[in-house]
Amino acid sequence: MIPRYSRPDMVAIWSPESKFKIWYEIEAHACEAMANLGVIPRENADAVWKAKDVEFDVARIDEIEAVTKHDVIAFLTHLAEHVGSEEARFVHQGMTSSDVLDTCLNVQLVRSADILIKDMEGLLAALKKRAIEHKDTVRVGRSHGIHAEPTTMGLTFARFYAEMDRNMARLKLAREEIATGAISGAVGTFANIDPRVEEHVCEQLGLAAEPISTQVIPRDRHAMFFATLGVIASSIENVAVEIRHMQRTEVLEGAEFFSMGQKGSSAMPHKKNPVLTENLTGLARLVRMSVIPAMENVALWHERDISHSSVERAIGPDACVTLDFALARLTGVIDKMLVFPENMLDNMNKFPGLVMSQRVLLALTQAGVSREDAYSMVQRNALKVWEDRVDFRELLLADADVVAALGEEAINEKFDMGYHTKHVDTIFKRVFGE
Amino acid sequence: MIPRYSRPDMVAIWSPESKFKIWYEIEAHACEAMANLGVIPRENADAVWKAKDVEFDVARIDEIEAVTKHDVIAFLTHLAEHVGSEEARFVHQGMTSSDVLDTCLNVQLVRSADILIKDMEGLLAALKKRAIEHKDTVRVGRSHGIHAEPTTMGLTFARFYAEMDRNMARLKLAREEIATGAISGAVGTFANIDPRVEEHVCEQLGLAAEPISTQVIPRDRHAMFFATLGVIASSIENVAVEIRHMQRTEVLEGAEFFSMGQKGSSAMPHKKNPVLTENLTGLARLVRMSVIPAMENVALWHERDISHSSVERAIGPDACVTLDFALARLTGVIDKMLVFPENMLDNMNKFPGLVMSQRVLLALTQAGVSREDAYSMVQRNALKVWEDRVDFRELLLADADVVAALGEEAINEKFDMGYHTKHVDTIFKRVFGE
Amino acid sequence: MIPRYSRPDMVAIWSPESKFKIWYEIEAHACEAMANLGVIPRENADAVWKAKDVEFDVARIDEIEAVTKHDVIAFLTHLAEHVGSEEARFVHQGMTSSDVLDTCLNVQLVRSADILIKDMEGLLAALKKRAIEHKDTVRVGRSHGIHAEPTTMGLTFARFYAEMDRNMARLKLAREEIATGAISGAVGTFANIDPRVEEHVCEQLGLAAEPISTQVIPRDRHAMFFATLGVIASSIENVAVEIRHMQRTEVLEGAEFFSMGQKGSSAMPHKKNPVLTENLTGLARLVRMSVIPAMENVALWHERDISHSSVERAIGPDACVTLDFALARLTGVIDKMLVFPENMLDNMNKFPGLVMSQRVLLALTQAGVSREDAYSMVQRNALKVWEDRVDFRELLLADADVVAALGEEAINEKFDMGYHTKHVDTIFKRVFGE
Amino acid sequence: MIPRYSRPDMVAIWSPESKFKIWYEIEAHACEAMANLGVIPRENADAVWKAKDVEFDVARIDEIEAVTKHDVIAFLTHLAEHVGSEEARFVHQGMTSSDVLDTCLNVQLVRSADILIKDMEGLLAALKKRAIEHKDTVRVGRSHGIHAEPTTMGLTFARFYAEMDRNMARLKLAREEIATGAISGAVGTFANIDPRVEEHVCEQLGLAAEPISTQVIPRDRHAMFFATLGVIASSIENVAVEIRHMQRTEVLEGAEFFSMGQKGSSAMPHKKNPVLTENLTGLARLVRMSVIPAMENVALWHERDISHSSVERAIGPDACVTLDFALARLTGVIDKMLVFPENMLDNMNKFPGLVMSQRVLLALTQAGVSREDAYSMVQRNALKVWEDRVDFRELLLADADVVAALGEEAINEKFDMGYHTKHVDTIFKRVFGE
Repeated sequence: MIPRYSRPDMVAIWSPESKFKIWYEIEAHACEAMANLGVIPRENADAVWKAKDVEFDVARIDEIEAVTKHDVIAFLTHLAEHVGSEEARFVHQGMTSSDVLDTCLNVQLVRSADILIKDMEGLLAALKKRAIEHKDTVRVGRSHGIHAEPTTMGLTFARFYAEMDRNMARLKLAREEIATGAISGAVGTFANIDPRVEEHVCEQLGLAAEPISTQVIPRDRHAMFFATLGVIASSIENVAVEIRHMQRTEVLEGAEFFSMGQKGSSAMPHKKNPVLTENLTGLARLVRMSVIPAMENVALWHERDISHSSVERAIGPDACVTLDFALARLTGVIDKMLVFPENMLDNMNKFPGLVMSQRVLLALTQAGVSREDAYSMVQRNALKVWEDRVDFRELLLADADVVAALGEEAINEKFDMGYHTKHVDTIFKRVFGE
Repeated sequence: MIPRYSRPDMVAIWSPESKFKIWYEIEAHACEAMANLGVIPRENADAVWKAKDVEFDVARIDEIEAVTKHDVIAFLTHLAEHVGSEEARFVHQGMTSSDVLDTCLNVQLVRSADILIKDMEGLLAALKKRAIEHKDTVRVGRSHGIHAEPTTMGLTFARFYAEMDRNMARLKLAREEIATGAISGAVGTFANIDPRVEEHVCEQLGLAAEPISTQVIPRDRHAMFFATLGVIASSIENVAVEIRHMQRTEVLEGAEFFSMGQKGSSAMPHKKNPVLTENLTGLARLVRMSVIPAMENVALWHERDISHSSVERAIGPDACVTLDFALARLTGVIDKMLVFPENMLDNMNKFPGLVMSQRVLLALTQAGVSREDAYSMVQRNALKVWEDRVDFRELLLADADVVAALGEEAINEKFDMGYHTKHVDTIFKRVFGE
Repeated sequence: MIPRYSRPDMVAIWSPESKFKIWYEIEAHACEAMANLGVIPRENADAVWKAKDVEFDVARIDEIEAVTKHDVIAFLTHLAEHVGSEEARFVHQGMTSSDVLDTCLNVQLVRSADILIKDMEGLLAALKKRAIEHKDTVRVGRSHGIHAEPTTMGLTFARFYAEMDRNMARLKLAREEIATGAISGAVGTFANIDPRVEEHVCEQLGLAAEPISTQVIPRDRHAMFFATLGVIASSIENVAVEIRHMQRTEVLEGAEFFSMGQKGSSAMPHKKNPVLTENLTGLARLVRMSVIPAMENVALWHERDISHSSVERAIGPDACVTLDFALARLTGVIDKMLVFPENMLDNMNKFPGLVMSQRVLLALTQAGVSREDAYSMVQRNALKVWEDRVDFRELLLADADVVAALGEEAINEKFDMGYHTKHVDTIFKRVFGE
Repeated sequence: MIPRYSRPDMVAIWSPESKFKIWYEIEAHACEAMANLGVIPRENADAVWKAKDVEFDVARIDEIEAVTKHDVIAFLTHLAEHVGSEEARFVHQGMTSSDVLDTCLNVQLVRSADILIKDMEGLLAALKKRAIEHKDTVRVGRSHGIHAEPTTMGLTFARFYAEMDRNMARLKLAREEIATGAISGAVGTFANIDPRVEEHVCEQLGLAAEPISTQVIPRDRHAMFFATLGVIASSIENVAVEIRHMQRTEVLEGAEFFSMGQKGSSAMPHKKNPVLTENLTGLARLVRMSVIPAMENVALWHERDISHSSVERAIGPDACVTLDFALARLTGVIDKMLVFPENMLDNMNKFPGLVMSQRVLLALTQAGVSREDAYSMVQRNALKVWEDRVDFRELLLADADVVAALGEEAINEKFDMGYHTKHVDTIFKRVFGE
């Protein structure tokens, strides 16, 4: 977790304070459930709620842990300092540390997912806004970095929208994956605790009870969660790379926002760097690197080994914090991104009209010209455009063979941009609905 | 794709013959749609169906490709040899190679997913059968490889069932992810082809039309697909590692099937190696290695670059074939796995009765003994068990302090196995339903 | 291993025929060593050499394996068919299958490394040739995809040369890593075989004896080998991405070779796609994906488990074959790559003279102009260039304040290209030596 | 970087204070070199050294950065506050930020490598000590987790020593990989700075001058560095997994240190968990996850993009800190590890004498018994051992056929442990030299 790539709400979820608060809630709800079942006295359960508004003292808990060498015991000891040690004596009864730790981790992941879902909503809104704004802004579509046929900037934004919308659906599924809790004891048999305690605690925390756990919640769930974050990060990279391409000096069809009036970089507007999207490219790698360790965590020995724990201490906060920051940064970039429609036209006409050459070739063969002759007609004119950057349409209109084959009107018609944009509405309807 | 780790049905999906068959179907359905729309003559569309039952000649297509240097053109040329070149002249009209290639890849992935789903059904059935069979077979649960509390072998099978059942759900979602097709032209604008052609072709092939594509179908879909396979592979590793542990000489609570009557390894039954599950551990790594390249494939340049293609040529068949083989192998292992209940009891009693020491400790403190004294009482007896492997219960019954604190009956009660298995039914109900 | 991305020499190393030949050599040299030590009769050792020129019959060995279920036994049985079963009776004495398998794998990896080293020599030669050719071909250097200061195309080739030269050194170290053999028996104690047999066999095969092995050669060696291939693949991607950028329509400073005279793509020279370097980008991902599984293979259980084997059956040939192909492909690309010096100048002057703005800014402050005023002088002229693409130098020469501060001569001097290329010789000397 | 898995010396290298100190040294040495070359006045160079013992004020620099939005400028501004802004006016002249940042990163990596090398020395010493101590401690060697033939605990430690010794060599090479600096300007042409400045600075900092750089030092170097850390981490996992196996309840041949006298866990010695080595298993995953992003960082666009930066901000400190901690932790574990030779013998005799069955089988066939009969003789006795755990040697001595074939003496000889340990000296000599 690197401060400059972190936002406070997400960081807060992973703070020791939050962790202890969640531990507290788990213990308090468990006591309540045990009181409901008549396992412990009601007054002891009630007493625990006295600490409801306490901000736990992390330094104090650390101090106790230095002695007890056990984090959960340290917390419970500190809790007893608030609740009274007599009153607190049934807290944690029949439970195992992992009941608290694993359920807490999932609460943190669920809350993180909730933030990510909100982030994604913001990104989707920005993408939709820009898609509609540039629905008809023509630019050249490229395959292999090479001009192919015209498309529109709106379609570019719309496909990023569709991709992120899929990511939203995946994120919601990923949230569901880890929205479980377990209070099932040392090996998951509920030997020392009633399964109804688990049910109550999970319900109170907005989780489902894990149908079958061991000492821990099964790690295939977490693997799926982090894999999903990895896919989302890759989509962020996808958008970032597009913008970096758009901003490169020779292309300049778009740019991360900068104001001409500004001092500094605006002294040299040609030196405005796409550092935010480059940064997003790197952040994508960081999020993605959690995926394999999370998968390696699945095969724990028997009812649990603790190898997963150190991994999750790192990737849990790191992947969530980094992805949150990346989604927010990308939203800002999209929202304020500069788009240069004139440059788009200039680029498309770098070899004037040549982008239509394939359509002309097709028309010639459809008009009955042999494939070989058609090639030859296109080639001799295309080469002139390539070498001298003269206008392709003019050349064709001056080429007697081409005119003979197609007629002037048909030649001109081949250069009609509407031909390429006629289905933009259809596609927008597919993506955005009505 | 390694022959010894491959099964024929899955391999067949990825054969050149299957690929060309699918290409054919795409082209034929597209012609039909174009005829329906009045774009091409009905008789030309009909003519294409003449090749319906043709097994395409891969060697011949390769021969043509050696000249044309283009796989789709080679195929179309060969198709015309069957259909007649006049009749075939509208085939592929307005389409781009990727329309065929990408839609075909997704058909192959969908069919692969269908096999994997069937594999998973088999695995679930085997796990359920063994879970029910060993529902009450007591063994010791272990955390950190160390004995903790009793559980049952049925719970072990049941938790693998639950994990694989989650994988089944993920697999179905993964299938949905890649069940789309695109016939949208060079940059996805449908400039040269009606979107209704795409809809028709996709419907016929059991796919959804990709709402917005470029020259290609967006690769976040494939990233999600392979990520899901990676999670499933990790779960396979999880089960495999459990069995490898069970079979090691010192544990011997279970083993991959072997028959005592057999010659060969049975001469030395103590040398029967868990090679199938070790192999599954390796195969899991192989499936998992597809995940990151699939994610790196997402950020293509503009409307497409072709960097993803070589990656998919490898991981497409390799990950699907390997996972299919692994699921089938694991199903066989589970189905016939040897379970040794007596050894389970022997192991649990390696330090006789010591597995119950924590329960005794708890009982002592609950009976009002101070934590310090309770520790001391347990410790002095536990150490004797540890050193001399005498029976813990006998020692406790002979320890006046312990007897004074708990009474004989309560001491004996602590060694009741039913205490640990009392909720097995509850858990089975959660996992398997009624 | 995908046929279209494979070359025959490397493929041959990984064929069953090669494998059996190497197995044979290991067994024959081992017999010889045992005869030398008086452990087996000389005539039996000599007899094994009768099979020296035999091409082993893979189908026959497979047939035997179908019965024996053991590949090494199948081979030995077949070998006895050539040597005579009486004469062959001491073959493999005291050895374990892994002695043969692991030593063979390393021979294959060493031979693969030798090919890769030769490939690298070819690539280095091509890079050096093109570096010298374009030593003084000026092009703009770019950071963040944005024009920065002038550099030369020769420096670009030279830095790729230096990077690949480092990779050559790494490759040689990687070769050394896996150039060991082991003939040390079931758990590496030489219980049934003299260590001098191992020494003899290794010496004959050009390997070092593994100082300490278990049943297998330690896998940290292989992890290091594949990690090195992963780094080399990443460097290939680095070069590939540069060329892909150079070839994009708006940049067009270079291109993969194509001939204008050619039919086909040359009809539309603007549509020549950098498919080879895009392909290399994908192949890099494929090679790189071996790295993590190779590392996961290191932690085998005790004296060996066989989880590594399936992984190596895949990544051994796949990574070597793919990297060989990629190096050869890249060499071809570099060797024949088109370079367009005029376009380089055109691009540098997209905003005429603006690439020198930072130098002017520096000169102004050094001439005593305040930072604020200097910024303002540069900015007002730079903005005109940015907006109207007029010549920056002309504007400066017409700006009284700038002329007052610097003088005409100094202004002109700032646009001298020699300023930027004056150390090219120094750098070339560093990279290529004298 | 997780505090509980961090050690202060390594953390210090990556602190802002260290970073600014290194920046300072780079700038000061550069000024000196420029003064030597007569490029700037000697007194200005001298003045910079006034700040030699300054602890830079991180909060103050952050404050300035909040205004300037540029970390290097903020630092230079703060430096001027110490040196005097007139005196400091030549600092950084002709340099680019990356000259400072990249050279600093490499200094940090070199210093980290130095700590890791020292860690490795400690680990090697511990492994050697334990190897010598347990050179003759017999235990059973295992393949596939199954008993194979006897070996010694010393050989286990010795092979880990050999593996770590290879890692030491790799680490030194990795250190060399990143021990370069670059002060070459905006695109690496030395346009504004003399190459001799670079040479001087690098020499002073113990680095080599990067022969050819762009704006940045090429990232294949860093990829190789992190790949090497990944291999070392995998070796740590290898050792950790061995110890975890040794400590599991059924095996108990060794354990992480605990004292019987201790309170707490010692109350239940059978519940002492191998949490340190489990933790090391997880830490290995964390270190390893840096490898792929470091490789993805290699292909930067043109003379640099900044995507690598965020990745390195994370993996630079994280991988180094985690590996340092892991090496130290492992050293402690090895140094104090409990070894239980009696349990080793007990385990080997779980099926008494059966571990020698293969040797008996071999002896029978060598004595002229047919393979079939030999199998049968071994099998009938082995099965009794397997089922009733009686002594194999006793059974053989009571089996008339076996005695007839081998004689009593030869049978007894097959159970001689010295047969298996006779080459331990040879192997130790190979590993440790004289």
